[in-house]
Amino acid sequence: MKHIPIGVSNRHIHLKKEHVEQLFGEGYELKVFKELSQPGEFAAEETVTIRTQKSEIQHVRILGPIRSLTQVEISKTDSFALGVKAPIRSSGNIEGTPGITIIGPRGEMNVDHGVIIAERHIHMTTDDAAAFGVRDGQYVSVKILGERGLIFNQVLIRVKDTYALDMHIDTDEANAAGLRSGDTVELLL
Amino acid sequence: MKHIPIGVSNRHIHLKKEHVEQLFGEGYELKVFKELSQPGEFAAEETVTIRTQKSEIQHVRILGPIRSLTQVEISKTDSFALGVKAPIRSSGNIEGTPGITIIGPRGEMNVDHGVIIAERHIHMTTDDAAAFGVRDGQYVSVKILGERGLIFNQVLIRVKDTYALDMHIDTDEANAAGLRSGDTVELLL
Repeated sequence: MKHIPIGVSNRHIHLKKEHVEQLFGEGYELKVFKELSQPGEFAAEETVTIRTQKSEIQHVRILGPIRSLTQVEISKTDSFALGVKAPIRSSGNIEGTPGITIIGPRGEMNVDHGVIIAERHIHMTTDDAAAFGVRDGQYVSVKILGERGLIFNQVLIRVKDTYALDMHIDTDEANAAGLRSGDTVELLL
Repeated sequence: MKHIPIGVSNRHIHLKKEHVEQLFGEGYELKVFKELSQPGEFAAEETVTIRTQKSEIQHVRILGPIRSLTQVEISKTDSFALGVKAPIRSSGNIEGTPGITIIGPRGEMNVDHGVIIAERHIHMTTDDAAAFGVRDGQYVSVKILGERGLIFNQVLIRVKDTYALDMHIDTDEANAAGLRSGDTVELLL
């Protein structure tokens, strides 16, 4: 049995340095609110508002550290509320995606792309991958038990030696499967 | 191949006669906004607000006709927004479930139970059941293709000769699987 812990991602945003400064002021540094399961990653104290012509969502958590690309990750539920046609994408793959307005305490800005619904995926090290018999970029299936039991197909394997073993799903997927962060699921090949 | 059309249920409410009158006035009759796939069922023109101590959701559609029990069906996403611990239940099985405040244009009331997250299920006739080789009350699995492809286990079969063939899932399940009303899915046994 190959068990993997679940991490449920609520909507969040990654920012590049110049965007942190546009939203929070010149030279601003994000403060760590909580360490995340992936080494070096953290939920920042700071949040922003994301806005479209249809509506807005406040208190969207920034995840640090600074990245080279600004990327907004929402759920499909959020995409309907906001009226934005966000595609399912793996992190970093944001070409051709819709933009949005981002509002901070010291400024606001429009990004012309970067809004995605994250593709479900499993982070693991090279050793984990060898133990599980999978490789980076492979799609696998994962079984969830319980009263909302299901099998997620189309789960992307992402391998890097700095990763911690963790399956990331969004709130829609967690709610549909009756999962919470810290639950464990079984890898099927 | 055994294909079944999907019906996505947004949050909604079923009301008994005395509750319609408490919310809309004595002798009030619901107006048909749209016929639903199940014969005789309709989305009413009327909506209500549901409220807890934590928050409220406006524009919750009433589904008619009148029922013998008042029942509020929300998603798990809604249950977090409202702060109500709604269990996964099949329709009508509401004993021991949480209550909520329901607000209409002419009155408001507290129900002390009736809030559920609907258990995913497939409506079918006796003839459909025979053709599929399933029986009322059985749990089956259903396969969804596409970029959020998955297999829903724990899908309840509900057989009645007045039913139309339809698999009912909620918005979390639809969003997790990349499904919309009218899509078709495959029954697995």
